[in-house]
Parts: sequence; C-alpha cells; structure tokens
Amino acid sequence: MFATFLFHENFSLLIEVIGTIAFAMSGAFAAMQYKLDPFGVLIIAFATAVGGGTIRDLLLGAPVFWMHDMLICTVIFVTAIFSMIFRSVEKKYKNTLFIFDSIGLGLFTIIGVQKGLEFGHHPVICLTLGTITGCFGGVLRDILINRIPLLLRKEIYATACIIGGTAFIIMTYIPGFSSQLVQISTILIIILIRSIAVKYRLHIPKFYLN
Amino acid sequence: MFATFLFHENFSLLIEVIGTIAFAMSGAFAAMQYKLDPFGVLIIAFATAVGGGTIRDLLLGAPVFWMHDMLICTVIFVTAIFSMIFRSVEKKYKNTLFIFDSIGLGLFTIIGVQKGLEFGHHPVICLTLGTITGCFGGVLRDILINRIPLLLRKEIYATACIIGGTAFIIMTYIPGFSSQLVQISTILIIILIRSIAVKYRLHIPKFYLN
Amino acid sequence: MFATFLFHENFSLLIEVIGTIAFAMSGAFAAMQYKLDPFGVLIIAFATAVGGGTIRDLLLGAPVFWMHDMLICTVIFVTAIFSMIFRSVEKKYKNTLFIFDSIGLGLFTIIGVQKGLEFGHHPVICLTLGTITGCFGGVLRDILINRIPLLLRKEIYATACIIGGTAFIIMTYIPGFSSQLVQISTILIIILIRSIAVKYRLHIPKFYLN
Repeated sequence: MFATFLFHENFSLLIEVIGTIAFAMSGAFAAMQYKLDPFGVLIIAFATAVGGGTIRDLLLGAPVFWMHDMLICTVIFVTAIFSMIFRSVEKKYKNTLFIFDSIGLGLFTIIGVQKGLEFGHHPVICLTLGTITGCFGGVLRDILINRIPLLLRKEIYATACIIGGTAFIIMTYIPGFSSQLVQISTILIIILIRSIAVKYRLHIPKFYLN
Repeated sequence: MFATFLFHENFSLLIEVIGTIAFAMSGAFAAMQYKLDPFGVLIIAFATAVGGGTIRDLLLGAPVFWMHDMLICTVIFVTAIFSMIFRSVEKKYKNTLFIFDSIGLGLFTIIGVQKGLEFGHHPVICLTLGTITGCFGGVLRDILINRIPLLLRKEIYATACIIGGTAFIIMTYIPGFSSQLVQISTILIIILIRSIAVKYRLHIPKFYLN
Repeated sequence: MFATFLFHENFSLLIEVIGTIAFAMSGAFAAMQYKLDPFGVLIIAFATAVGGGTIRDLLLGAPVFWMHDMLICTVIFVTAIFSMIFRSVEKKYKNTLFIFDSIGLGLFTIIGVQKGLEFGHHPVICLTLGTITGCFGGVLRDILINRIPLLLRKEIYATACIIGGTAFIIMTYIPGFSSQLVQISTILIIILIRSIAVKYRLHIPKFYLN
C-alpha cells in the first residue's frame, strides 16, 4: 500500500526528471549550435525544459511546477553544465540524443494529459494540454534562438504527441492496464512513431496543395 | 425576461463563434501559405483563434475560456479542415476573407473590452485588454511561422482596435444604446477603418522621422 | 514609523517608475529603428515595459501589476510620446540611454527577486524570477520586431542580472543593511558589470567550443 504509493510517486518523478534532462539537453545543444555564451546555454536549456510545463500549469490555474521544486532546477543546471563539458557527446551519440528527445516528448505529453485528467477536464482538452506540454518547450527554444519552430518542420512531431496522447487516454480507461503500463506503452508508441517518421522521412501529405 | 437573457447569451456566443471562425481561417491560410502539414495547419489555426483570449484570461486571472468550452475547439477543428479542403476559397474570395478577418478583429476586441469591464477594471485597462485580445492571436500566428507580426506592418491594424474599443466604451456608458447595438456599431466601425485604410493605403504618419 | 513606511513605499514606487521609463524608452527606440508607425511604437514600448513584470506575476499567481496601476500605463504612454518627439535624444545621448537601460535592467531584477522573497520562495527561485523580470521585456520586444533577442547577444546581459540578483539576496540577509542600501548597491553592481562588459567588450568564454 504505502510501498505501492511510493512506487507510483517515484515512477512519476522519474518520468519528470528524465523528460527534463532530455529537453534541457536539447535546449543546451541548440544554444551551443548557435554559439551562445554559457549563460545563454543555461537560459535556453531552462526555457526548453520548463516551457511546456509552465504553459500547462498557467492554463490549468495550477502552481507553476518548477517554482516549488528545487530538484527540477538542479537537474536542469547539472544537465546544461554536463552538455557543455561533454559537447562532443552530440556528434558521437546522435541516435542516443534523438531517442532522448523522443522520450522527452513522450514523457511531457503524458504528464500534460495526466494533469489535465486530474483537473477533471474533457479528454480532448487533455489531449491538447498534453500536446502543448510536449511541444511548447521546443517552440520556446526556437523562438528565443530565432528559427522556425522545429515543431512545424520536423517529420511528424506534434502528430506523434497527438497519437500517443490519444493512445494514453484510451488505455487509461481500460480497466486492466496499470498506470505504469499505460505510461510506458505511450512512450514506446511516441518513440516508435518518431523513429519510423525520421527513418523513412515520412510526412503527412499536404492534401490541400492542389 | 428569460427570452431576453437567452437572446443576450446567444448573441454573445454567436460573436465568439464567428470571431473564432475568422481567426482560425486566418491561421489556417497563413499555415498553408508556409506549406505546413495538416497538423501544423491545425496547430496554427488553433493558436491564432485562442491566443488572444488565452492571454486575456490569464491577465484577468479567469479560467481560460477554451478549456471549458468544447464548442470552441470543435469550431476551430471544423474550420481548419474546411479551410484545407476548400483551399481555393482564399483566392476566389479574397475580399470576403478580409472582411472576415476584420470582423474577427472587431469581435475579439469587443469581447476583450467587455470582459475587462465585467471584472471591474479601469476603461483604459479594458481598452488595452481589448486590443491585446484582438491582436495577440495574429501575433502568435506570426511568431510561430517566423515572420514579422502583421500587427506591426499592416495598415492601421491595432489602431482600428484602439479606436473601435474606445467607441465601444463610450457607447456602453450612453444610457440609450442596447448592448447589441453597441457591439454591432463597434464591429462596423472597425471594419470601416480597416477597409478605408487598406483601400487608400493609409498609414499613421511617422512624425518622428525628421 | 508612518513616515518611514511612506519613505519605503515611495522608494519602491520610484524604482518601479524609473525602470518602466527606461524599458519603455528602450522599446520605443527599437520600434522607431524598425520604422513602425506611432501606434506600433506605443505597443512595443508597452510590451517591453510590462513584459517582464507580467510573466513574473503570472508565475507567482499574483494579480498582474499594470492592470491595477494607472500610473504605470500613464508613464509608458508619456515616455513613448516623449521618445517619438525627441527622437534625436537617442543619438546625442547614447551613453545616457545605455545607463538608463542598465538601470532598468537592475531595477526590474531587484523588483523580481524581492517579490519572489515576499511570496516565500527559495532564493534560487527568486534569482530566476528576478532574471526573468529583468530580461523578458527585452526578449518580448525582440520577438515582436523579429530579431534575435539581444539578451543572447549582448555582452554579459543576463549574467549581470544573475550576479546582481545574487548580491541582492546575500545583502538582504545581512542584518546591518537597510533595504534602500541593498537596492542601490545592487543597481550599482549591475550598472558596473554592464558598463565594464560593454567598454572592454567582455564575453563569458565559450569553453565548450573545443
């Protein structure tokens, strides 16, 4: 009982930390690509990691998560420093980083959908919240370094969130699935969609172009 | 009495729906112009349609309107799909779309001013809120597709909101005018200002350039 | 006692007004540089002056400051008009404007840190809030006129906020220092850092570039 509670709490926390590391890395590497100074790298890493969750909490009228959580701030700071020290990681481990970015996207989408459900919102609203939570950090990062948001250019980025989030909501309502199983399945779905999309250079056909 | 209440409620709802359709169209067409995939078109349409009202509600400390209203989300979704299916609408009906965009601008400005007054704010604050509600959706759209906000380039865009919003506030305080008359007059004023400005290519003189 | 209270209140108000003037000027001059019309200049001046404080209040869950303060709106409006009328000020008084911008940066950083402490947040969170309050107005200004945020390009901009904010927090916990002494010292530190950085073209070394 209490052990199960601890397991649930720790699993949610682990998800949040891994997602934060993933997006902080994504922001740090983008900032270094644009040759920003170390404080600029820290700022972009921070904005990317907390952007989605901040918008989500403002929309829900909830306390903004990172303002009450020194762990998140510490994780971001350490990740940014690590990213700068081990800059070469980006080139040698391009696949690992891509997996990490997709994990972050999936994790933050799940957290967003989940929080919306906890607040009693309609599933479609929760899906929107999850997509916003997953994508907005990257959008903020791209706005700050002044490039077209990757969200709108990358192969099937937001689509992966929407499909994954829908799967999450459906699985949540199925009695047999434990919450960890639902979360892990959703993350795997999103990673799979992103991987297939990037490998086969898939795009949603722009059927409106006659 | 109850019938009058229903009429007032429905009129306000109609205004909100038409404004939402107008801005969702504006966002969808801009996204298609920039060759985004259908999910990108949906995202931009959504951001443009809810951006202004979301900022307004956050500033007022009110619940964010679209999160409690499935009608708005549905209207945006249907409008985006329609815009993509009938892409050719944009070229054949350029004038109609311009009128629609001006209607949206006027409607959202009114809604913003009105909500500010309901919350008991100073008329000048309400004017600012109205201008933000009218303009910010378009600003968000332009930020996301990475172009200079049309707000700052188009002929007399925000100015139309400010003049219209001022007229709205003045007429609201005149005892004889019903609220529907005030709303319709304001919309007409804003459409008129925008039409004259575009037709005669009017600009506010930049008197500061010596 | 009451006189001391009046002095404290007035000093805080003076800080807020000077900071607002500084950032409104900064926004107005940037807008004129990009040849926006007078309403565009007003909008950018307003966004730059209230941007940081608005984000800070939203994150804290506090009422948004400018919506309850006609003085701030009036100060911004008058400053924007003055900036347009006396456009030549920018060229003849470049040093004065730079000092003003650094004063604004320092003042808004202080206000942000202070408000965070009043709300009982952890000092590191307050430091983050102070940096956001100081820098975000300028970021918003740059996003609207579609240029890379100066925050990320200027010599030691956010760094000055972080160092100044840290000094502010440390001095606040030292019993002997009055709050005015702490505030003035912090402003001087930030102005000093910015001046040295610009004069000697200092940059934080990008140690991550191998």
